[in-house]
Amino acid sequence: MRGFEPTEFAARTQRLQSSMAAEGLDAILVTTEADVRYITGFLTRFWESPSRAWYVIVPASGNPIAVIPSIGAALMGTTWVEDIRTWRAPDLQDDGVSLLSSTLDEVLGGSGGRVGLPAGHETNLRMPLQDFWALQALRPERAFVSDGNIVRSARSVKSGAEIEKIRHSCAVTGRAFDRLGEVLTVGTTMAQLYRGFQQLCLDEGADFVTYVAGGTGAWGYGDIIAPADGTVVAAGNVVMLDTGVIVDGYFADFDRNFSVGKPPRQDVQDAFARLWEATDAGFAAAKPGARASDLFAAMDQVVTGGKNSADTGRFGHGLGLQLTEWPSLIPDEHVELTPGMVLTLEPSIDTGGGQGDILVHEENIVITETGAAWLTPRSGPEIRVLHPA
Amino acid sequence: MRGFEPTEFAARTQRLQSSMAAEGLDAILVTTEADVRYITGFLTRFWESPSRAWYVIVPASGNPIAVIPSIGAALMGTTWVEDIRTWRAPDLQDDGVSLLSSTLDEVLGGSGGRVGLPAGHETNLRMPLQDFWALQALRPERAFVSDGNIVRSARSVKSGAEIEKIRHSCAVTGRAFDRLGEVLTVGTTMAQLYRGFQQLCLDEGADFVTYVAGGTGAWGYGDIIAPADGTVVAAGNVVMLDTGVIVDGYFADFDRNFSVGKPPRQDVQDAFARLWEATDAGFAAAKPGARASDLFAAMDQVVTGGKNSADTGRFGHGLGLQLTEWPSLIPDEHVELTPGMVLTLEPSIDTGGGQGDILVHEENIVITETGAAWLTPRSGPEIRVLHPA
Repeated sequence: MRGFEPTEFAARTQRLQSSMAAEGLDAILVTTEADVRYITGFLTRFWESPSRAWYVIVPASGNPIAVIPSIGAALMGTTWVEDIRTWRAPDLQDDGVSLLSSTLDEVLGGSGGRVGLPAGHETNLRMPLQDFWALQALRPERAFVSDGNIVRSARSVKSGAEIEKIRHSCAVTGRAFDRLGEVLTVGTTMAQLYRGFQQLCLDEGADFVTYVAGGTGAWGYGDIIAPADGTVVAAGNVVMLDTGVIVDGYFADFDRNFSVGKPPRQDVQDAFARLWEATDAGFAAAKPGARASDLFAAMDQVVTGGKNSADTGRFGHGLGLQLTEWPSLIPDEHVELTPGMVLTLEPSIDTGGGQGDILVHEENIVITETGAAWLTPRSGPEIRVLHPA
Repeated sequence: MRGFEPTEFAARTQRLQSSMAAEGLDAILVTTEADVRYITGFLTRFWESPSRAWYVIVPASGNPIAVIPSIGAALMGTTWVEDIRTWRAPDLQDDGVSLLSSTLDEVLGGSGGRVGLPAGHETNLRMPLQDFWALQALRPERAFVSDGNIVRSARSVKSGAEIEKIRHSCAVTGRAFDRLGEVLTVGTTMAQLYRGFQQLCLDEGADFVTYVAGGTGAWGYGDIIAPADGTVVAAGNVVMLDTGVIVDGYFADFDRNFSVGKPPRQDVQDAFARLWEATDAGFAAAKPGARASDLFAAMDQVVTGGKNSADTGRFGHGLGLQLTEWPSLIPDEHVELTPGMVLTLEPSIDTGGGQGDILVHEENIVITETGAAWLTPRSGPEIRVLHPA
């Protein structure tokens, strides 16, 4: 099934509302693709255009209200949201600001009130600053404050229906990786590989492939976020592909390492084996009550002996409506894991070539009542060799 | 050639700096993918992850300074930027804020100064609000103000090298549209069509296809931003596909209307002919000194007789590093067009079916010294019929 039942969105709204009371918020205002979609189900690639702002208000009680450009009214009308207010955007004089402000007046029963905005890490305010300043100036007595991370916390715990969507995206991506030999052989350029891999993902059922990164080299790769280029894959070099694949609005985010023609050098194989063991250790540590930092520590113990020296900054993160979500698996993140949290395990390791080349390996998991479960069709413990000679 | 010569970025920086003086700004701070890339050339899909903030400062004189997570240091090191300062992100205590603040101190020669931020339409501040508030609190005497739209104005006028990239993206997309019959026939679902079209774009040289929208129906379509669904294309119904295709970081953004098996009903054909004429009128009006509003008026005269009643809100927009950029072609936008501006002409028309169904047609143009030039391989004046019976 595409989308969700209205009960799913009602439950999300109620969860936010129960946290709002504790935070002393009279309403929450969200502006980003992921937050708006979480609350409403509004799914479109139109967010790729920065020209229009979209606002959704969650009142202290009752259903959300959408304040959006008229071009989105028909699509928002297909969601569970019933109170949809529109303006014709873009409007250079008043691009929805007074409509948003008066809607807040109505929701808050006056010109004051405390409005929570997602303000922590992984968030941003997706509206022009001049319009935010104007919104504040219209009602100086209204407080626009941090939402106390209510929205990100709610989003971090996935429902069963959400988990199935992520599992499906992972399966689609896994089938594409299984077929990688169709587009990767000795002499393939990284640019050809990026394109061919995206086509395989689409073939297997992806809606969109918005993230591909990778690297190749004898000792691994120095950069894991670079765009495709004309670099040619050589026999025995390791090739990594990392991807963000969307089906029905939910991401898979994992990578695979390959070599072509012959296995990579033994040092690289050994490093990969340790990296794979690190995901084992992360998985074993993943259970309700464990902290994000515990998963980091378990993986870091395997790859650096506990030195915390990886330059990638973290060993995994939340996953769902966005390619990366809160929380990060880092030493300082002590949030307790709860059933329904979807995470990536993404350790990296220096392969010892002396040039800073690394390997990265990534899997996706969900926290269950008793431990964790793999969402990705897990990689084997050895780098897979395509087209062995 | 991929990317640009360093002279391109030096020219962009100098253009910004000459406008900064007029605006009374001591520095500009940018945070978004498009703005950071415009100034530095930093090209990656990693922006799909909201977890890390990226900062680039343009001082009043001298070269830009990047303040970025260490995971991006290698890639930023391949650009023309020499002054790259990094922190290991994510850092829950201080995610680059004090590094950014102290770098601003250095650039501004003290704890004050006026820092311009892109703040107008089509912009947003891509950093957590809590970090922006912290940045302001660290230096209460420093003014963070609107950049006076300097960055969007600079970006709106493309260099010859940029225009060639957009022309290339348009050509890639045009070849994919030429082959649409390979993936669209009677009985194809919209979901299959979206996938197949993306594969054709990749086949023809797209790096990424981040935007696809469309619609189908006997009288046109009521919604032009909806995601794909299981709707089956029927013989003689019109099918519209609109797309954002990226090659080397520059977008093409145009649509095409088709029918399958047999031509659409005559009313729809007639409406399309008028829509096509509207793009003719828009093109004829497009020249240096004309205003964005003049192009709107020319097209609106053809499609509504000058009533300005189209609910899509505008009849075109800027295009380049983003799918849509400033300016909008609307009655209130009176900016004068100058050579190098790349625009879409995107009128819509009610087909008269009584259900609000419309047709949308879109082409991409560039303003030249004497008028305008098409960047898209222009559509013919009739809806193209695939697989005619």
